[in-house]
Parts: sequence; C-alpha cells; structure tokens
Amino acid sequence: MLTLYAFGPGANSMKPLLTLYEKGVAFEHRFLNPANFEHHEPWFKAINPRGQVPALDHDGRIVTESTVICEYVEESFPDPPNLMPADPFGRAQVRVWTKWVDEYFCWCVSTIGWERMIGPMARALSDEEFEDKVKGIPVPEQQVKWRNARKGFAREVLDEEMRKIRVSVAKLEARLAESEWLAGDSYTLADICNFAIANGMQHGFAEVVNADNTPHLLAWIERINERPACKRMFAESRSEMRSADLAKAKAEAEA
Amino acid sequence: MLTLYAFGPGANSMKPLLTLYEKGVAFEHRFLNPANFEHHEPWFKAINPRGQVPALDHDGRIVTESTVICEYVEESFPDPPNLMPADPFGRAQVRVWTKWVDEYFCWCVSTIGWERMIGPMARALSDEEFEDKVKGIPVPEQQVKWRNARKGFAREVLDEEMRKIRVSVAKLEARLAESEWLAGDSYTLADICNFAIANGMQHGFAEVVNADNTPHLLAWIERINERPACKRMFAESRSEMRSADLAKAKAEAEA
Repeated sequence: MLTLYAFGPGANSMKPLLTLYEKGVAFEHRFLNPANFEHHEPWFKAINPRGQVPALDHDGRIVTESTVICEYVEESFPDPPNLMPADPFGRAQVRVWTKWVDEYFCWCVSTIGWERMIGPMARALSDEEFEDKVKGIPVPEQQVKWRNARKGFAREVLDEEMRKIRVSVAKLEARLAESEWLAGDSYTLADICNFAIANGMQHGFAEVVNADNTPHLLAWIERINERPACKRMFAESRSEMRSADLAKAKAEAEA
Repeated sequence: MLTLYAFGPGANSMKPLLTLYEKGVAFEHRFLNPANFEHHEPWFKAINPRGQVPALDHDGRIVTESTVICEYVEESFPDPPNLMPADPFGRAQVRVWTKWVDEYFCWCVSTIGWERMIGPMARALSDEEFEDKVKGIPVPEQQVKWRNARKGFAREVLDEEMRKIRVSVAKLEARLAESEWLAGDSYTLADICNFAIANGMQHGFAEVVNADNTPHLLAWIERINERPACKRMFAESRSEMRSADLAKAKAEAEA
C-alpha cells in the first residue's frame, strides 16, 4: 500500500506526486485541503509530527520531506523510466539541483505565494480563530510565518525575495539555454523538483517568466506539461480534489 | 586522482573529509586557509565558481556541496565500510537527517561561529582591504554575511540563532537517548554530517552541550572522536595545515 498525503499538484506536494505518476506505480493520493488546516489536525500529526505535507505511507512506514520522498520512490521502484542517472556523477548533479530548490528557489517563490494567498486566508479568520489555528502548528518557524503572512510581510522582505526570484529564473534560463534538461541528457528528479516550483510562474510572475525574457525556461515548462504523466496528474488531481470537497460538504450537511 | 579542496576538519569541510577517511580511499587534501580568503581567489573560483569549499576533483570532474560529495564518495567507492544503509527506507532516514543539518542545524551554529571568528578577522582589515576582499566573493548572500559579521550581527539575530541551537541540541540528545546512531543501527552519513557541526560544541557551547544536559550527545561525540578514521583525520590534517602554512611563509620570505 502506497499513500501520498499531499496538497495536490503544486509546490512541494507536486514533487513526489509527479514522480509517482512518472514511475507509473499505483498509489492513493490523499488530498489535504490547506484552507481547512487539515495538515495541522491531530490525525495528520500522528503521521507527520511536523504537520507538513507531503508525506508518504509505504506499507505503514512513513517517509517525509518532498525531495527525500522522490529519491525514495525512485529507489523503491527501480524499474524504468529512471528518474536518476545511472552514474554517481550524474546523480550528484541532480542532487545539487534539488538541493538548490530546497534551500533557495522554493523559499523566495513561497514567500510571495504566502503574501498573495495565505495572507488573505489568515486575515479572513477572527483573531480567536487564527490563534486557535496557529496553536495547532507544531513547527515554531511556521507559526512565525503564519503571523507574518497575516500581518503582511515587510516591504524589504518582499523586495529581497523578488530579487532572489529574478536570480533563480536567470539561473534556470541560462542552464536550459544550453541543455534540454537540467542535470544532463535526460529528464530527472532535477527537472521534476524545479518544475514543481517553476510551473505557474508564467502566469503568477509573468513579468519575469515570459517568451521574451526566458524562452528556454518557458519551453521547458511547456515540454513537461505535455508529458503524459503530467497531464494525467493534473486531470486526476482535479477530480480527486473535487471529490474531497464534495465528501466534506456532504459530511457537513449530514452533521 | 581524487583531490578534496577543504578548510580542514571542521564544519562543512569535515563532512567529505571524514567520509573519505572512513572509506579508506586514497586522496589528496588540498588545504585552503580561510584567513587568507584563498577560496575567493580566481584559481579556486575556476574550480568552484561559487567560491565555496568543500569541492571534490575526481579525475577532473568537480563535485560541489558537502552533503552531495559525501553521497558521491559512498556511491563511487561502494566497497565496505558502507556509510549508507542498503535499503531505500534507511537511506531516506539518513537523508532527512543530512537535510536537517543543511537547512537548520548548520546555520545557527554558523552564525555564532561567524560572530566569534569571522567578525574579528574582518575587523582586523582596513576598509579598503575589506571591500577588496568582499568584491571577490561571488555569492551575493555571502557578501551580505561578511558585512554583517564585520559590523557584528544584531542582538536579536544572535538570540534567535541561540534558540535554534538549543532546539537542535535537544533534538540530537532525544534521538541519541534512544539510538546509538542517528539513522538506525549503524554509523552512517547522518552521523558524519551531524558530527561535522556538533563536534567542538562541548567546548564552544559548553553551557548547552555538557555531561548534565546532554549525556547521550556527548557520548556520541566522544564515540566518533575515538574512531580510527577520525583520529587519523585530525592528526593528518594538523600536519597538512602546518605544511601549508610553512610553504606559504617560505614563499613570502622568498618573494
């Protein structure tokens, strides 16, 4: 039994989700709705005490951390398609790219995303409701981030994150101008983990990611979107997210 | 040919250094002296454009990022002793621990280390000398860190980093109270990468790491220090660092 707990096909949740679709292994996608703070509920903290998605349950053993889950899936299901190079040097290149996503690229994009989406969500709650939600967050740094998002991040923080976004996008564009895939000749976890953050920037950050500034990055985003596994991921996730919403509405109506 | 460019047996440099000693593979340790800003010199930036150690040259191919180098060494030299578990779940546990070092533990210890050691080093330079050195640093965030270290980090930054150090130490102590090694039954890269940061805290952070507060962490630090590979690493590094200093003094005397 393989169950992925995730928010659906975006950001860190997308990394293992797309990896599982690319590998073609059967799994259940247990969709958590961030707007309902489901990942901070006790039942989920029993699975991941840090209250963070994604988390993978493989026959009762829990693997956490999106990038770690991707390598775990690749190693546990070694049949092709292979998402890691066969040689150690190639694997090292993939890991430099996935590490960069986790330590730099994902954070700047995340802060702007929080400012735009989590901020309004947090401000829609009363002070009491908000404090009650924050109390349920197990990681202190995440509590601080929720509070900052509710207040609105400071201008200089947002400016610095936008600077890092421009640095990140320029780095990806430069690499993709010389290579079809990020870590060499083939599509690997380096592409999946970067795509999980970069996809959507052609809309949300169109002033940075567009046909004039970043033609190679845009072509790479489109190339991955055209992959059968990626299409299936988006189509099936939409219907799963709808079912989860319907089930919740039904439960509430019956309650 | 295997050459490790490193600052010697401490912090991130120690991770691949100790890994190489544990694996027992022949390599050259090319010692760079941070006090001379050697890692920002053009010859080294030709090896790692980011101007950061450690970097590994394996037959002319360069691998960067300390944790990535450790896995690369393990995979390139698969003969025992094995520093990664044989099963994917075990490897995932190691990676969660090494990721935590890279994203949390190493940063808080690093800031305090910079405040104590890099700050005075930077203040010993004239403004002109300092600006000249900073100009040579290729990573903008590192330039900012050097400037902050020279001014002295803000009190609230230091307080927050000390809070994170206490969180980190408590996490290590709790884990080591229940397990001899961090990621399971055997000594792995999880231990090496954490030891690289934790070793020395029994002196530099004796108010946090000591026999009363953290007996299990202290015993683990001592256990690793007693390993033959670790003893050899410290002994040989001392003599290499002395030789490098002598060679430099000789070159200066002849100049």
